[in-house]
Amino acid sequence: MDRQSRIIYLDNAATSFPKPPEVLQEMLDTYSRLGVSPGRGSYDLASQCEQLVHTVRQQISDFFGGDGPERVIFAYNSTDALNTVIHGLMEPGCHVVSSRLEHNSVLRPLHYLREHGLILLDLVPFDGNGFIDPQDVARAIEPSTRFVILNHASNVFGTIQPVSDVGRICAEHEVPLVLDVSQSAGIVPIDMGVGGTGSESWSMAQPQDYPRRLEAGTLNTLGIIGLSAGMRYILQRDMANIYRDEMSLARTLRDGLASIKGVRLYCAHTLENHVAVLTCNVEDLDPEDFAAILDGDFDIATRAGLHCAPLVHKDLGTSPRGSVRFSPGPLNTGGDVSAAVEAVQAIVANLK
Amino acid sequence: MDRQSRIIYLDNAATSFPKPPEVLQEMLDTYSRLGVSPGRGSYDLASQCEQLVHTVRQQISDFFGGDGPERVIFAYNSTDALNTVIHGLMEPGCHVVSSRLEHNSVLRPLHYLREHGLILLDLVPFDGNGFIDPQDVARAIEPSTRFVILNHASNVFGTIQPVSDVGRICAEHEVPLVLDVSQSAGIVPIDMGVGGTGSESWSMAQPQDYPRRLEAGTLNTLGIIGLSAGMRYILQRDMANIYRDEMSLARTLRDGLASIKGVRLYCAHTLENHVAVLTCNVEDLDPEDFAAILDGDFDIATRAGLHCAPLVHKDLGTSPRGSVRFSPGPLNTGGDVSAAVEAVQAIVANLK
Repeated sequence: MDRQSRIIYLDNAATSFPKPPEVLQEMLDTYSRLGVSPGRGSYDLASQCEQLVHTVRQQISDFFGGDGPERVIFAYNSTDALNTVIHGLMEPGCHVVSSRLEHNSVLRPLHYLREHGLILLDLVPFDGNGFIDPQDVARAIEPSTRFVILNHASNVFGTIQPVSDVGRICAEHEVPLVLDVSQSAGIVPIDMGVGGTGSESWSMAQPQDYPRRLEAGTLNTLGIIGLSAGMRYILQRDMANIYRDEMSLARTLRDGLASIKGVRLYCAHTLENHVAVLTCNVEDLDPEDFAAILDGDFDIATRAGLHCAPLVHKDLGTSPRGSVRFSPGPLNTGGDVSAAVEAVQAIVANLK
Repeated sequence: MDRQSRIIYLDNAATSFPKPPEVLQEMLDTYSRLGVSPGRGSYDLASQCEQLVHTVRQQISDFFGGDGPERVIFAYNSTDALNTVIHGLMEPGCHVVSSRLEHNSVLRPLHYLREHGLILLDLVPFDGNGFIDPQDVARAIEPSTRFVILNHASNVFGTIQPVSDVGRICAEHEVPLVLDVSQSAGIVPIDMGVGGTGSESWSMAQPQDYPRRLEAGTLNTLGIIGLSAGMRYILQRDMANIYRDEMSLARTLRDGLASIKGVRLYCAHTLENHVAVLTCNVEDLDPEDFAAILDGDFDIATRAGLHCAPLVHKDLGTSPRGSVRFSPGPLNTGGDVSAAVEAVQAIVANLK
């Protein structure tokens, strides 16, 4: 039997898996037909491919309430995009506000710049429920603050941060707000024009010749086709339905795990303003071992460790071993999360 | 009738098209089965995906005679990789040797660094056949030369540069040689250990924690699977056979075009040390118009303009309008290039 057909995948916070079959099929079909180098050749096929890429930019701009297709920039991945924004917005000697909830893709470039004496940095804390306080951001902003950069939804807790309030504060101070939406895009509504600064999250300083200013070389056309097909999947199933279904699974999982003596859940007391990401530990069990047993004995895929967010675990007191993260996705079922709860029950029972 | 099934695609120097169907199918099948985030999760599926990525690195290292899988770095595209190497090797105040044959992906970062007073730059010329002289490189090297960076095969002329000789000269001076193999990889044999410097073309200064040092964030697993399937395609058909077939098409095309009065071919007097890239102009016809007629009237896809190599066209006297480039690929046929020659004959006849 195929491994994929029996594994229970609960690591959607890393990447959604499996991909909807119709998305993959559209990638293959369209790329077979139009997969030339877009926007360089003058022949009709190259124009069709360029038009396709342009349409996807428009689709993304519409989806996120952006200012138009030319301000949609394709990067290699979130880490690449965030590095481009950070290094592009940064000016030597400036001040930057971020948070202790951030992923390494934000923490590492900021720390690099601070260690090289190029920026001053303030990281606001998160509370016991996994949320930052917008007033902490307001207090941290200085006249020399060049930008505020924040996780929209935590990749450890799943908590959705109060970015509308932060956006208003940033707008008052005329400071751009950059959001890392890796955990929230396509799950919860994002409107770049609401509560923001009027400046797009992923734009850079000089407004000329976009998007080419930030995209060098040949585009990943196959990936762009997949992005388009994936967005169509979300729109067809309706994002609100996907979010509701995922949170229903998260709630079942949270309730199930919370009822097991010896399991400690973090920042999941309520699931208001959460995405479907849950973090926990089992007493007297190393998180790596916990995840390895889930995989080896139960074919359940989760993610153990620090989740590339070292400050979160430091503040949580779970460093250096971290925790185990469960992240159901749009293709998981109620059976999957029930099986996960039963597996954890069995693991805990076996420890005694 | 499907547009793709009747178009004659002769723009393989931009990107090969169509992709071999078995390559696309393998991408889809493998990604459906293993497309999780590689190398982060500890569950079995993530390990399998990581193993797959590792195997592709090994395959690439073997293919190019590299020093092992950990020195194979996946970038967004050639432009991204070349920028990483240039900015990584550069030291403020150093001297760099390159050539006037280069693509903008090398010229632009070098010019940026020179304009900001960070490097001194020498660009060696090319001769009337489209080749650089290794002795020019030897003469350009200074004690402060940090690296030499060269096009392996010209994306305008298809000429394969004498990189073995250049490699020996660089080795004598203990200067790393960086090669842009965008036009030659998978077409002609490349051995990073022969005639080189002992330093891999795409490695950076500090040899620690490769490949992760240069790969941030989630990998493009689908692209990596495609790369693997593509390399298998090349190995199965045998690279020498593909090269022979492509050059046979190029020869037919060159002979056909050369026989038409009013057509001017550049640097294609012999096709020794060439890849299957041919550049030409038709007297009294703008290259954009030439390519547009080929596309509109004959469904033949070529590439007009400067081919992102402005200095080549400046030195050739074809600036600012450039030329038209024909680049047959592994899936083109003799019928394709005959049709192209007949089309050019008809276009020239019609001009009179």
